[in-house]
Amino acid sequence: MLHQIPLEKTKLTDEFWSFYIKTIKQNTIPYQYGVLNNSPHVTIENENKKDFFENQKSNALENFRVAAGISSGGHYGMIFQDSDVYKWLEAVAYSLHINPDKELQSVADSVVQLIAAAQTGDGYIDTYFQVKEPRLKYRMLYSGHELYCMGHLLEAAAAYYEATANTAALQIAEKVIDHIDSVFGCDDDKIQGSDGHPEIELGLLKIYETTKNPKALRLAEFFLDIRGKNTEFYAEEMAKNEKDGLPIKMIKVPDLKSYLVAHTQPKNMTEAVGHAVRMLYLAAAMARIVHHNSDREMLDACRAIWDNVANKKLYITGGVGSTTDGEAFTGDYDLPNDIMYCETCASIALAFFAYDMFMIEPKAEYMDVIERALYNGILSGASLDGIHFFYVNPLEVNGRINDENPDHGHVKRIRPQWYSCACCPPNFARAIGSVQRYIYTADSENKAVYINLFADSSVDCDGIKLVQHTSFPYSNRIKLVADSAGECTIKIRIPYWSRNFKISAYGKSIPYKAENGYAVLCGKWNNTVMDITFETPVMAVKASSSVIADANRIAVQRGPFVYCAEQLDNPQPLSRYRISAEDINTASVSLENCVLGKIPFIDIKAKTEHINSTDLYSFDAEAVYKNHNLRMLPYYAWANRGDSDMMVWLHQK
Amino acid sequence: MLHQIPLEKTKLTDEFWSFYIKTIKQNTIPYQYGVLNNSPHVTIENENKKDFFENQKSNALENFRVAAGISSGGHYGMIFQDSDVYKWLEAVAYSLHINPDKELQSVADSVVQLIAAAQTGDGYIDTYFQVKEPRLKYRMLYSGHELYCMGHLLEAAAAYYEATANTAALQIAEKVIDHIDSVFGCDDDKIQGSDGHPEIELGLLKIYETTKNPKALRLAEFFLDIRGKNTEFYAEEMAKNEKDGLPIKMIKVPDLKSYLVAHTQPKNMTEAVGHAVRMLYLAAAMARIVHHNSDREMLDACRAIWDNVANKKLYITGGVGSTTDGEAFTGDYDLPNDIMYCETCASIALAFFAYDMFMIEPKAEYMDVIERALYNGILSGASLDGIHFFYVNPLEVNGRINDENPDHGHVKRIRPQWYSCACCPPNFARAIGSVQRYIYTADSENKAVYINLFADSSVDCDGIKLVQHTSFPYSNRIKLVADSAGECTIKIRIPYWSRNFKISAYGKSIPYKAENGYAVLCGKWNNTVMDITFETPVMAVKASSSVIADANRIAVQRGPFVYCAEQLDNPQPLSRYRISAEDINTASVSLENCVLGKIPFIDIKAKTEHINSTDLYSFDAEAVYKNHNLRMLPYYAWANRGDSDMMVWLHQK
Repeated sequence: MLHQIPLEKTKLTDEFWSFYIKTIKQNTIPYQYGVLNNSPHVTIENENKKDFFENQKSNALENFRVAAGISSGGHYGMIFQDSDVYKWLEAVAYSLHINPDKELQSVADSVVQLIAAAQTGDGYIDTYFQVKEPRLKYRMLYSGHELYCMGHLLEAAAAYYEATANTAALQIAEKVIDHIDSVFGCDDDKIQGSDGHPEIELGLLKIYETTKNPKALRLAEFFLDIRGKNTEFYAEEMAKNEKDGLPIKMIKVPDLKSYLVAHTQPKNMTEAVGHAVRMLYLAAAMARIVHHNSDREMLDACRAIWDNVANKKLYITGGVGSTTDGEAFTGDYDLPNDIMYCETCASIALAFFAYDMFMIEPKAEYMDVIERALYNGILSGASLDGIHFFYVNPLEVNGRINDENPDHGHVKRIRPQWYSCACCPPNFARAIGSVQRYIYTADSENKAVYINLFADSSVDCDGIKLVQHTSFPYSNRIKLVADSAGECTIKIRIPYWSRNFKISAYGKSIPYKAENGYAVLCGKWNNTVMDITFETPVMAVKASSSVIADANRIAVQRGPFVYCAEQLDNPQPLSRYRISAEDINTASVSLENCVLGKIPFIDIKAKTEHINSTDLYSFDAEAVYKNHNLRMLPYYAWANRGDSDMMVWLHQK
Repeated sequence: MLHQIPLEKTKLTDEFWSFYIKTIKQNTIPYQYGVLNNSPHVTIENENKKDFFENQKSNALENFRVAAGISSGGHYGMIFQDSDVYKWLEAVAYSLHINPDKELQSVADSVVQLIAAAQTGDGYIDTYFQVKEPRLKYRMLYSGHELYCMGHLLEAAAAYYEATANTAALQIAEKVIDHIDSVFGCDDDKIQGSDGHPEIELGLLKIYETTKNPKALRLAEFFLDIRGKNTEFYAEEMAKNEKDGLPIKMIKVPDLKSYLVAHTQPKNMTEAVGHAVRMLYLAAAMARIVHHNSDREMLDACRAIWDNVANKKLYITGGVGSTTDGEAFTGDYDLPNDIMYCETCASIALAFFAYDMFMIEPKAEYMDVIERALYNGILSGASLDGIHFFYVNPLEVNGRINDENPDHGHVKRIRPQWYSCACCPPNFARAIGSVQRYIYTADSENKAVYINLFADSSVDCDGIKLVQHTSFPYSNRIKLVADSAGECTIKIRIPYWSRNFKISAYGKSIPYKAENGYAVLCGKWNNTVMDITFETPVMAVKASSSVIADANRIAVQRGPFVYCAEQLDNPQPLSRYRISAEDINTASVSLENCVLGKIPFIDIKAKTEHINSTDLYSFDAEAVYKNHNLRMLPYYAWANRGDSDMMVWLHQK
């Protein structure tokens, strides 16, 4: 069995990711703490122009103070506002784990104390229900998010304990688990249902992995089994509230059962449906539990969901969720580029799911998707300053349409400072803040270490020490130094986007067996220096012919980076450019005038088409073709230089 | 000034339109009468899967019986259910006008008597408010549709009087007008506002044109002036209802003012915004009133709206309304092909607006749009059997996406028998049922007759007799016989889609002056026989480069018909076909295997592209190109042979 390498056993020194780790520590974490404390300098936007709720402040920490009796007043914000605090705390934990910081730790300790103060004697904690709707406690699992919030609390507690060895958060978590155990379960006097938004399962599993508390594993198994067992569970909850004269508090969704990912039991699921984040948090927990209980039925379901997402419902950017209506998956190969959802949280959830699949069966296909999401659709979730965030990550925007067509009301072109529903910003901080966990993975039983991602970094695990000296992604050469106490195996991922992938030592090529997308090297290493080299040509990408939205279109990728064209760099409207695979293959890579660090622009010899007519439709209008350079930049870096149209899938010549 | 030629002065004998006139008389009118009487054999669909209201029956006539005290029970159906009856009655009037029919007339007379019985003593009539919500009478002009319904009653009454000389409906109308006059106006004790849905203005003008009742014209002028004068009028109405503890009854719309087309006064309007049908009914009334009062300011506004719609917001099919959200116009050149609205009613409203503009300034550009809408986006509103109807007329459908993506929930691929909101079916019947009004127009002052459309037909007006002998659109030759008492002018529209347009007599070419898109022939005619000939090659259409949705796409038109590809006729998925203008120019026209009457299929030598890979995205996948015939049929005839994907704008080679 593979296992995760503790964060502190990996040192990340590379330029690309260290920039983000540092930005999150220096900018994102303090900024978000300010927001959670109602910083007056933050402009909060709705995630969709159509929404009517308009929160003017976060109030998340104040809600805890009110619940704790420290402040007076009411609850403010979304029903799941607590989770913003927990995700922020988890991000802080990773930051402290990597870079200890007393001042930050004392701020975080005070937040943990505040959470403890808000928790009731029986272990319950949810400021919305404590302060605003006590009569609805556990009566609206369809939309209450209580267990969702508690799940994030458990994740944060596990991370916080791991980072600081401070058991305060873990004690809160253990009380939460005892409380949940007293309320939920198969007994007749307990609630036989799970939260409409999966997350508690992941939280319980992380606590189990930290403390080995069997109750946590048992509860995770219970929640993963009970979901969808009675497909009318949530409808019955609503009916009961209505009957008892209580408010329903449920938004209109296309289909309740699939929106809540409770249309069937997890073990019977065969595809990704419904709300994308819910589906993928659930799938991650399903895969993660297989790691512990080796449930074959569940593994089969995980594989089916994976196959469906990765091969039929995944954007080239690592985005998922084709519609804003229910923030949901739609049908196979339905991947519109301009009105999709591609929520940052959904790409993060996808990376979690892929990671948990990889831990069961270490194949490159899982790491390929993690990498696709990390370097593209997750990173695009925040600006380079780390304090502006996208909820929705489009593959094509046109400002004119965006402003005037309500079907595009959820698509933004400038990252806001914060959202009425602020799930994505702290999720970004915790996901990217722990990015180094993906670089190496250990298989202690087989004395093997996997190198999944290239980055200047080192790992020391199970008596195997590996150091990557590289300026990747700014170069294509990794000097790998390996040292081991005895015989062991090094498995190096052969990236699908690399060409001419070679491993050599002291000038001699090292033959390797390729297995599941990894180059397998067995041996005893004594400060052995190896060279890993490959090429990263500019590559033309074609989507499957089944993807109607990408028909007659072509995309550009170099290394792990998907590229896009921004209007800012190009004189003609983007829809007028025409490129071919040949143009892309002969593109030039330019560092000149690159305003966004070292990642190069790509310049492609394109043609533009202009219909020489003022008529809306014309028969004989001359199509004028001109040669034009098309300048592209990495997708993750778009929208960092002001308002601009953008396009990933360009029209094909 | 131009004037409309009474329907009975025109005889329509052509195969294409007579088919519809006959189908409407034989199928549509009796079928719709059955529906309005709750025929048990009709399946009623929601126009959007997302809608929650689900009417199980029309009940429209029963509502009148209840209001009249003949039946007991409540009101059922939409708030504007009455208008379905009025539009049906108007369609009957046109049918009787063209083909008198005692039996049908007696059915229609009984409906008129029922309406009279339902009308209250003070002239008010609206079964919803009479039966269900009397306390809300005229208190919710933002969504009540009372004046909208009454406007349709007035239109029907004018048509019914013209058709039958029966004054019963006209008497109802005069009582309605007196009643409206007593309630609405500039006086302090009157309501200084108009209906949220324009229509009363058109109704009043048609009554004015029939009876010359000055009150009708004055009220039309009042409603066209008061609209948007106080832009808070509707918000104030809502606030008052809320204050008085009355229900609001208003759906959620993107922007209330523009949805109700009351963001400014009509004379100040500069573009088409908001709900497409409302906007265009209003614009039609604005143009129509200029015919009577020559208001320059209003004419300028009409021209600005026209220019905006015709040159920036019009689909190639004559469809309008780019979003289902508010059933509305969006920004300039925003014309998505798959999630648009293109309501049948909106194309009908556009034809009305174009017609009223033409009556002010007879230019071919207006007739071009009428023809585009008539032969394409309006006709597609009904099946060839005349008893199944589209609300939404898409330019591209893919069944797989359609079924699983809620953003496409309003797009249907099979015409339903009826709708919960059934505005379109009877509107289709009245619009196409009076199609012959568009063929000829008279200008008595200048002793001129306009031939706007080619069709086997005749007209006898102001001492000028014209007969078109032709099998157009199945041939490109018209034998025109002209006879006149003295000197007169014949103006023949030179269709923009025709090539090599010639007029000759007795073998000799007749030179003509072209003016505003019309060939102008002056003379004295004595059973003069002329030949009008032209070519209708298969033409490639390109959209303006500003239309992002049509970039790298190409469409096919022949004569007035826009073509589309149906999956049924083509072996490969439609998104895989690639065609060029050259392919289209060398297309062949085939009558073989044509199942839909005489209109030919068009066969185009196309290529298909298939990416030879099972991967969702691939770098080096081989693109396999094959030669394939692409078979296309006229857009109006799509979806008459079962469920099929469809595409108007094909990918360009």
